[in-house]
Amino acid sequence: MIKTEREKMSDGEPYEQFDPELVERRELIRRELLTINQLDDNKQQNTNIKALLADSGDDFWAETGIEFDYGFNIHIGNHFYANYHLTMLDTCPITIGDHCYIGPDVGFYTPVHPLSAKLRNADVEMGKPITVGDSVWMGGHVTILPGVTLGDRVVVGAGSVVTKSFGDDLVIAGNPARIIRYLDDNGDVSPG
Amino acid sequence: MIKTEREKMSDGEPYEQFDPELVERRELIRRELLTINQLDDNKQQNTNIKALLADSGDDFWAETGIEFDYGFNIHIGNHFYANYHLTMLDTCPITIGDHCYIGPDVGFYTPVHPLSAKLRNADVEMGKPITVGDSVWMGGHVTILPGVTLGDRVVVGAGSVVTKSFGDDLVIAGNPARIIRYLDDNGDVSPG
Amino acid sequence: MIKTEREKMSDGEPYEQFDPELVERRELIRRELLTINQLDDNKQQNTNIKALLADSGDDFWAETGIEFDYGFNIHIGNHFYANYHLTMLDTCPITIGDHCYIGPDVGFYTPVHPLSAKLRNADVEMGKPITVGDSVWMGGHVTILPGVTLGDRVVVGAGSVVTKSFGDDLVIAGNPARIIRYLDDNGDVSPG
Repeated sequence: MIKTEREKMSDGEPYEQFDPELVERRELIRRELLTINQLDDNKQQNTNIKALLADSGDDFWAETGIEFDYGFNIHIGNHFYANYHLTMLDTCPITIGDHCYIGPDVGFYTPVHPLSAKLRNADVEMGKPITVGDSVWMGGHVTILPGVTLGDRVVVGAGSVVTKSFGDDLVIAGNPARIIRYLDDNGDVSPG
Repeated sequence: MIKTEREKMSDGEPYEQFDPELVERRELIRRELLTINQLDDNKQQNTNIKALLADSGDDFWAETGIEFDYGFNIHIGNHFYANYHLTMLDTCPITIGDHCYIGPDVGFYTPVHPLSAKLRNADVEMGKPITVGDSVWMGGHVTILPGVTLGDRVVVGAGSVVTKSFGDDLVIAGNPARIIRYLDDNGDVSPG
Repeated sequence: MIKTEREKMSDGEPYEQFDPELVERRELIRRELLTINQLDDNKQQNTNIKALLADSGDDFWAETGIEFDYGFNIHIGNHFYANYHLTMLDTCPITIGDHCYIGPDVGFYTPVHPLSAKLRNADVEMGKPITVGDSVWMGGHVTILPGVTLGDRVVVGAGSVVTKSFGDDLVIAGNPARIIRYLDDNGDVSPG
């Protein structure tokens, strides 16, 4: 079976970014988000955003300024809160668990370009998925790179650049982000 | 005397974020900022922003894209300049002295969530104030964390993440920000 | 021959920021960008942005949210792509080669204020140019400081703060950005 460009893209394989289905979707999302980000009724805004996502749970809230590319690769659990100007580049799936809180100016980036300038200039594009567990809190100005998985109950310090995956019950911070504290099962600080 | 939720919040104590007074204020600010950030007359924009702040001095200027939550906890001195897209999360007081210059995409964040996921998911919210002295210059993409105090004549390098307080006459930079240079009383570079 | 304030500014010398020619230009750009950033036709948006720049090549694309101060100091080569919310403070020239790809929330900052608070408060402003070679790829949330030159085929990791100049065929990352990998002439990873 031959994959569509959308399927190749979502699977992280090289794809044709000017494929008509993808171009049409990007243009739709662009138009919708320009309108959505000017709505002064936050509930209506949230309803309209949810309609563009693959799936999202109860109690979804995003402040003004959200941007994403396709929406069909964004999966969000229940009780989601994102502060101003969330950016999700969703060429590959971005999956976020329940009870996640995201600070302002946070970026989830799944696209990957080749390190080879020759390939990059030929518009070879790929991507890697991002997966975030339950009960994760990210401070503002956080950057999440392609391929990152974060476990449950992780706290990401403001300004962190997360370049690799981390497990459960941690506080991570810095550029690149490193473990700065272990939390116990209850989310309280572990003595160890 | 029983504190209102607004008083608890401003004092850094756990508060009810869905308190009607707070919800109404957030909705007002949201509506006002959507309009303000589309004004093409910068002077009118600045006048309208000032009307939403607790207090602000002469010669106030903010470029397009300012965001804040309440305004009633923002106190700004004379001769203030903020470049594009300043974000101030003012659950607790943000106090900025005279002659402060702020680069683009800077965030002042006073809210604090518990490290315990159990408490965080129960929507326990607190905060810590941010205080900035006189004649402080911050480069772009700077992040100021809850509880930070900066002295007078501090220069904050672009891209810094300021996680703790610093005194007067310093250049700080990095993630987390550290002292990289001492300045003398005149703001010139100290020989020491 | 006496320089105009615009010439002094572009040459990196102290200049009068309230010079009428400069104020008028900033107001024009502000009005134009407010309109441009609300256009739902991305091609029209790109055409209108290009009309405000000193020069720009074929195949120019910028997503929503671009900000700059003057435009007359921005020089961009062919095959340019900038993701959401590019910020270019162009008091001094910003020169970008061919085939450059820029992630979301990137800032190019040419303005420099004095470290001396006395001079800074007297509104002494200067700047230093930024120059970027061909085939450069910058991840999201990157900050480029005044005076930086980057060579050809440089990859800048997401979240980097670039405080000094670098040559050709490198991957740089971190705050401050450092060389993390050497690439060979083909852009492939060098064995060395």
